[in-house]
Amino acid sequence: MTPYEKYRLRIPLRVRWAEVDLQGVVFNGNYLTYCDVCVTEYWRAIGMPYPAAFLEIGSDMFVRKATLEYHAAAVFDDELEVCGRTGRLGRTSLVFQVGMFRRGSTDSALIEGELVYVNVDPSTRATRPLPEALRQRIREFEPRSPEGERAHDAS
Amino acid sequence: MTPYEKYRLRIPLRVRWAEVDLQGVVFNGNYLTYCDVCVTEYWRAIGMPYPAAFLEIGSDMFVRKATLEYHAAAVFDDELEVCGRTGRLGRTSLVFQVGMFRRGSTDSALIEGELVYVNVDPSTRATRPLPEALRQRIREFEPRSPEGERAHDAS
Amino acid sequence: MTPYEKYRLRIPLRVRWAEVDLQGVVFNGNYLTYCDVCVTEYWRAIGMPYPAAFLEIGSDMFVRKATLEYHAAAVFDDELEVCGRTGRLGRTSLVFQVGMFRRGSTDSALIEGELVYVNVDPSTRATRPLPEALRQRIREFEPRSPEGERAHDAS
Amino acid sequence: MTPYEKYRLRIPLRVRWAEVDLQGVVFNGNYLTYCDVCVTEYWRAIGMPYPAAFLEIGSDMFVRKATLEYHAAAVFDDELEVCGRTGRLGRTSLVFQVGMFRRGSTDSALIEGELVYVNVDPSTRATRPLPEALRQRIREFEPRSPEGERAHDAS
Repeated sequence: MTPYEKYRLRIPLRVRWAEVDLQGVVFNGNYLTYCDVCVTEYWRAIGMPYPAAFLEIGSDMFVRKATLEYHAAAVFDDELEVCGRTGRLGRTSLVFQVGMFRRGSTDSALIEGELVYVNVDPSTRATRPLPEALRQRIREFEPRSPEGERAHDAS
Repeated sequence: MTPYEKYRLRIPLRVRWAEVDLQGVVFNGNYLTYCDVCVTEYWRAIGMPYPAAFLEIGSDMFVRKATLEYHAAAVFDDELEVCGRTGRLGRTSLVFQVGMFRRGSTDSALIEGELVYVNVDPSTRATRPLPEALRQRIREFEPRSPEGERAHDAS
Repeated sequence: MTPYEKYRLRIPLRVRWAEVDLQGVVFNGNYLTYCDVCVTEYWRAIGMPYPAAFLEIGSDMFVRKATLEYHAAAVFDDELEVCGRTGRLGRTSLVFQVGMFRRGSTDSALIEGELVYVNVDPSTRATRPLPEALRQRIREFEPRSPEGERAHDAS
Repeated sequence: MTPYEKYRLRIPLRVRWAEVDLQGVVFNGNYLTYCDVCVTEYWRAIGMPYPAAFLEIGSDMFVRKATLEYHAAAVFDDELEVCGRTGRLGRTSLVFQVGMFRRGSTDSALIEGELVYVNVDPSTRATRPLPEALRQRIREFEPRSPEGERAHDAS
């Protein structure tokens, strides 16, 4: 489990009524919406607001794979911190990690997510190497470079 | 309340787990998704599949106003019939009526919806008179012409 | 149109990617989720956090009718202010008004919503007069008492 | 990739307008709603309609882990076949596999999902061995017993 401290980006998010199902917990698919909110803020935080800054450098990002682990449930009105970081930088893709913590209880994540994003040409949607500009921004933002870890090859 | 028999289009729809909230009923906003499913099938039924057939005649439709009346609740796994008809044809807009009935219990609607759609130019999104082709298709489809009723003016 | 200044409660809300459809605007039904976020914060603001404080006084609230007017579109990443107030207090129901403004552009609402909430007994779900405690809290919170306006009768 | 023929359960599902995002494809999280629709129909198909038949035998199911692989995109109005099967039966959990195919194009799945469900006591939500009745129903339904494969241990 990625510890709270390893995430530089932390987004406050309060669970909405419409996101909770009859089991009294956030419906399992809605956490991917939370992940998406987090990655949107991540692009903004590194100075690459999506989609404008990506289009400028001829890039778009598609999700190739998503994994969610449900350690504990979030319930209505919970105040979460949705935390994100780039876990790995590959040639054409990157792995974005998300940890969702209940505010004030940051020793263990309720939910962990991992999304593999692949970089594509916006017009053809063909896979392309990650733009160097994006790679640079991520390296600068992350406390420690994610480069050292095994590069993910999504092609 | 518009009776079941006045609707020519009737779409079966089963309530999904993710659509139901902690009160045990469909979250109030999700009925607008059901309305949208219904209007999509309506355009198909009259021979104008959205958005292709609309773009061909230089048209797009935007919702200007939506009203939902909640007479009774739909719950998880309910088999609904979502029924739709054009209630009024105006100069630039039309009123689409939706009635949601529980299957086999068609004497009164659980939910009634009314959506005012306004016709726009797809590129400028400026309001335009309803295309005659669309008007004609609706007249042909509806059991009785909705023309006779008071025309709605959305401009 | 209810002016921005008449709303005491104003909630910041940023439009999520998953809430926007192919027309490039927030899907029409998702505004009811925004309304629900607003009413949740309203109950908290008046000192009646939902559902706990309602259950304590033997009350639950159901939506009887919802109306949305779409004056202009909200788009991805828009920073909205979702504003809410009690417009009318009836015997068994109240009318909650919502205005959604783009931040920094508060002269006209993009979207206006009106929701009729009816008070029910939590166990039987039968309509009951609005609890005096709730009525009192609302009167205290609102800049001017909504009592003076025509009482809405939802029964 | 699990071939189309290995799935005994196949559910028709048409992509809704509200499920598609600005990239023109189904928003990545909405596929988990499709998975949920599929598992609901699976419980019905094996004679264990959820939640009633589960409560009767003192069981409830929670998602412990979910994985989605996005091979190709589903777009608005696509007619999908959402196919489901139990891939593995463990002691306390089972792995449910989902393949989403475009109708008439069943040689490769657009999307594949895998959900680990853990059986719990409905009142305490503590993990419990899979009820024998459930295990039996699944064995009878699946073309070949999933027992032979490596049992998943979710505890």
